[in-house]
This record gives sequence, C-alpha cells and structure tokens, in this order.
Amino acid sequence: MKKLINKPDDVVTEELQGIEAAHPDLVRVFYDPHYIVRADAPVQGKVALVSGGGSGHEPMHGGFVGVGMLDAACPGQVFTSPTPDQMEAATKAVNGGAGVVHIVKNYTGDVMNFEMAADLCRAEGIDVESVLVDDDVAVQDSLYTAGRRGVGTTVLLEKIAGAAAEERRSLKEVADIAREVNANGRSMGMALTSCTVPAAGKPTFEIGDDEIEIGIGIHGEPGRERTKLKPAAEIVEIMATAVVDDVPFKQGDQVLAFVNGMGGTPLIELYVVYNEVAKFLKGRGVTIARNLIGSYITSLEMAGCSITLLKLSDELIRLWDAPVKTPGLRWGV
Amino acid sequence: MKKLINKPDDVVTEELQGIEAAHPDLVRVFYDPHYIVRADAPVQGKVALVSGGGSGHEPMHGGFVGVGMLDAACPGQVFTSPTPDQMEAATKAVNGGAGVVHIVKNYTGDVMNFEMAADLCRAEGIDVESVLVDDDVAVQDSLYTAGRRGVGTTVLLEKIAGAAAEERRSLKEVADIAREVNANGRSMGMALTSCTVPAAGKPTFEIGDDEIEIGIGIHGEPGRERTKLKPAAEIVEIMATAVVDDVPFKQGDQVLAFVNGMGGTPLIELYVVYNEVAKFLKGRGVTIARNLIGSYITSLEMAGCSITLLKLSDELIRLWDAPVKTPGLRWGV
Repeated sequence: MKKLINKPDDVVTEELQGIEAAHPDLVRVFYDPHYIVRADAPVQGKVALVSGGGSGHEPMHGGFVGVGMLDAACPGQVFTSPTPDQMEAATKAVNGGAGVVHIVKNYTGDVMNFEMAADLCRAEGIDVESVLVDDDVAVQDSLYTAGRRGVGTTVLLEKIAGAAAEERRSLKEVADIAREVNANGRSMGMALTSCTVPAAGKPTFEIGDDEIEIGIGIHGEPGRERTKLKPAAEIVEIMATAVVDDVPFKQGDQVLAFVNGMGGTPLIELYVVYNEVAKFLKGRGVTIARNLIGSYITSLEMAGCSITLLKLSDELIRLWDAPVKTPGLRWGV
Repeated sequence: MKKLINKPDDVVTEELQGIEAAHPDLVRVFYDPHYIVRADAPVQGKVALVSGGGSGHEPMHGGFVGVGMLDAACPGQVFTSPTPDQMEAATKAVNGGAGVVHIVKNYTGDVMNFEMAADLCRAEGIDVESVLVDDDVAVQDSLYTAGRRGVGTTVLLEKIAGAAAEERRSLKEVADIAREVNANGRSMGMALTSCTVPAAGKPTFEIGDDEIEIGIGIHGEPGRERTKLKPAAEIVEIMATAVVDDVPFKQGDQVLAFVNGMGGTPLIELYVVYNEVAKFLKGRGVTIARNLIGSYITSLEMAGCSITLLKLSDELIRLWDAPVKTPGLRWGV
C-alpha cells in the first residue's frame, strides 16, 4: 500500500488538521468528537444543514462546509459511518433556532446513526428534518445498503439546499427542496481500479488489468457487471442509458450533468467522458443547462468516474447558481 | 493500460471538445491548429497572456483560460510541445493591441517553439515578451530541459500575471510581475506511481511496490532519489527543506503554500501533506498567508504530489486575491 500518509489510524485526524490549517476563514474543526462547522456558526435564524459519512470521499462532506452549502459535516473513519454523538454535537453547534436538516446518504450505518442523533436532538428541543439520498441506479440493494445507495446527487443536493437555507427559507421548505433534488437526480459509477482503505492496507477488491466494474459503489461495493475495458463512448452509453431511463429524463428536459472522478482519475479523462455525455444527451434531446466536472465524491484513490444527471427547474437553476464559498466548491464570492 | 478514453490518438481533441461543450461561457476552442481562447478575446487594450505545453497536465493550461488568468492556451499532444503555428495563431487571436506575454515552462521543445512563434508574431507587428518558468529545485538539468524545469509556480504565475493584465498594466509591467513570481517561487515533486502516455500504452517508468521517486518531473522524468516509501512527514521534510533553502525563505517571510496532486492522488492525502507543510513552515518561522490545495498541474494519472512555495509581497497577495473565472480556478465572481 503506497499512500501519502503517516500512520493509517491517524489519517482522518491529520486530514482534519490540514483542513483547519488551510481554511480558518471558512471553517472550524472540532476533534472530540470529530466535526467541522462553518466559521460563523451558528447563524441565527437560518436553517442549518448537517451531513456526514465515512471519510475517503473528499472533498465530500467536509469540503462542502461554508457559506451557501453545509453548516456542518461529521466525518467518520475511512468508509465508516460517523457516530450519533458526532452528529448530535454538530447539530447543536450549528442550530440557529430555525431547525436543522440532516442530509443522509442511504447506507445502513449512516441512516441508523443519523436517526439516533435526530431523536437525541429533538429531545433537546431542536427541530430536525432528515433527508435521505438514494440516487444510485446501479443496484437495488448492496453491501452496506437496503435500497439504492446515495452517491453523486448528494453533492448537488447539498449545494442547492444550502442556497435555499441561505435565503432564510423555512425548515420544511429547505427539506422539501432537498427531497426534490433527490427525486430528480440519478447516478451511476464505474471503476478501473480498486481503492485501498488505509487501515486494511490491501485493495478492497481485485480487478484484472483489462477489466472494469460498471455500477460500482463509492466504497468499492460490487456493481452490475464486471466486464472487459471498453472505449469511453461505450462506457458512457451504458451508464447514461441506465440513468436517463430511470427518472426518466425526456426530450426537452434541462439537466445538470455532473461527471465525477473517483479520486485516481485525471481531469483529462473526465473531459473525454463529459464529451461523450454531451453527445449522448444531445441524441436524446436533453439539454445540459449546467455542469460540474471534477472529483467531488471520491473513493480514496480509485480510478473511475460516475455520471449524475439532475432534472432542473428554473428554481433549481437559480439555487445552483447562487454564491457558494467552501473549500471544495466556490463561485460568486 | 486502463484509461477512460476512446482511441489514444484522439484523447487531446476529444478533451478539447469536452472543454468546449462544458464551458462555452468561458472559452472558445479552435482545432486547426489546437488552441483555446477566453470567450471575449481579443480584449482591446489589455495585455494578453498566452501559455501552452504538452497535454496531460490538466487543468493546466487550458483550464486556466478565462477572465483574470490566461487569454489563450496551446495544448500539444500528451507530453509533447505545442507547435509554433499553434502559438502564433493563439497570439494573433488574443492580441488586443497592448502586447502579448508568452509564459513558457522551461522544456527545450517549448522554449524553442515559443521563441519561433514570438519571432513570427513580432515580424507581424505584435509586441511579445517571453517569461520563462524554471522553479523546480530537484535537479539542474533533466531529460527534456537544460537548466531547471518549470512546474508548480507556473499556476501561481498565470493567476497573478493574469490579474495584473486585467488591471490594464503595461506589457513590461505584466512581464516583470510574472518574472518576479518566477524568481520567488520554488517547487519540488514526488511520485508513488508512474504515469502512462496513451500513445505509448505502457508506464513511463517502473517503480517498485514499496518505492517512491523524490524530485520527479511532471513527465515522469527522473528526480533526485529513488527510495523506500516513507511517512508523509518525512517526505515533506525532504521536499520542503530543499524548497525553503533555495530562495532562501527566511523567518518572517510570508508565502503562498501550494500542495499539488499529480493526478492520481486523492484530496484526503493532499490535506495530510498540507498539514505537514504547515507544521514544517511554522518551525522555520515562515507564515503561510495564502494556500492552494488540489490537482492543478498533473502528470496524467501519476500518484504523488508537489510542494510549491512562493514568497509573497502585499502586491502579490492583492493580485492573487483578485477575481478569477476559469474552468479550473475560480473565485470572486
């Protein structure tokens, strides 16, 4: 295992120390338990957004804490759910009196722990709404999930719901917008190589020199199909067809097209993939109104990509375009 | 070789098509010969900045075309210098009558071709100033270079000189600021794995499962030392010492610290590295006034990182903070 780390057990703490050292203008970091809040938290009168999940998906979620996106993120150990006490502490730290939305990717551990934390917070008088993200069309149930997994749509949802909260919308309105994003977003991923969890020290799965895994999860969970390497055009055809047919996206729809790198794939390849996605959607009569290209929800050093499409209303476009200032996503300010 | 591409020969053209499809608000792309210009080029009365080099280092340079940074970029084939006709066409396309600065990384092919292009442009009445970037402290001469290689400082230089040009400074002033950045910036890189040039189809170099290469170039050129894998703290100590002692950076200096990923290294590791850089500089009494963390000058899918330090004046800080809106770097707008 070759990684730029010190001790495997210290990776998450040292990463947080790096974030704290790099972005004191944007975030504050707490270590007992681990959580990250925006620098000016709590913002009085604003609905607060809290997310979290296992580490190893950076910049998600810690890199999305800041103005216009998350109020707090709870990083678990690598590929391990954060604990209810992290979520409770983060929720209390960012509660500005207008309620808190928990954004929960659909993995069994995350769901269970966020439910427990929500109960604890409600018992202390904090209004909490939970929003589940389950946008991965690849498989129905999976290694860590009953139902569909939560993947790329999470990034878009955190941005859009964050903008709604910034406008001082009510708790119910922010949660409803977040649920609308989840309902209209679909994703599918693929991998060329495995990832290696630092504490495990060996690849999560084996894959041949000429093989790819289509429909993979963000923890290296099995997907739909292990197949021989194909040209980017064919890979995009398979993934985009599954995504487009699921909502379904129809001729005349406007979408946000998000081509995401899994951590070990360089940008030059993501642009080749984006080019194929643009051609594919043109053929279906679907218009790309907005896009995002880069590594935003990763699986450590896994090589591969995912494609997320989100059907856009004018309102969602407006919220997407609103200013955001976080370590991982920034525009307009 | 596993990559998300179609035919190896089409990678650069298809990547450019992807950029064109994704960012029509920011850039325009030309194909015969290949170059990218900002959407509103030429900007009358503004000094124009043109850079370029082999592809495979994305987002550099094409991802840095836009308001506040480059006016044009000339992408060669992967790890291959662009041709003088690309540079000439790009220079003419962005010339707004106030002169053009060529930003040239110190590789023999780039230097020769940019010189030829500058001569051609001058013969047609365009004022051209050339600025050489040679910031890599690892080795004196190298596989493709007489003298030091141009690496990470290029990104910072293009941002800062771009801001100066946006303020309508004169050709000489913009070129002088660019040279000041090069004089005060130093870098060193390392790799955990090789990159693979698509047309070659096999790794550029062999490296053991427990080995790293310290001082590597951005094309996989040999560095200072092939050694066993070390903890991040030790790797940073070696690289940062070489960088700090070279300017030299002194106690009380303010710097921009740039931790760059080589393409295959995930962000979680870059933050672990940044944490070590911050501790190292604190020990030397050097203050990090600004930072940049992410994969901005890459070597295809190579795993590894580089550290660049730039000594900052108040003026350089002001220009760094100025708005920029490009596919690869954006803030303030």
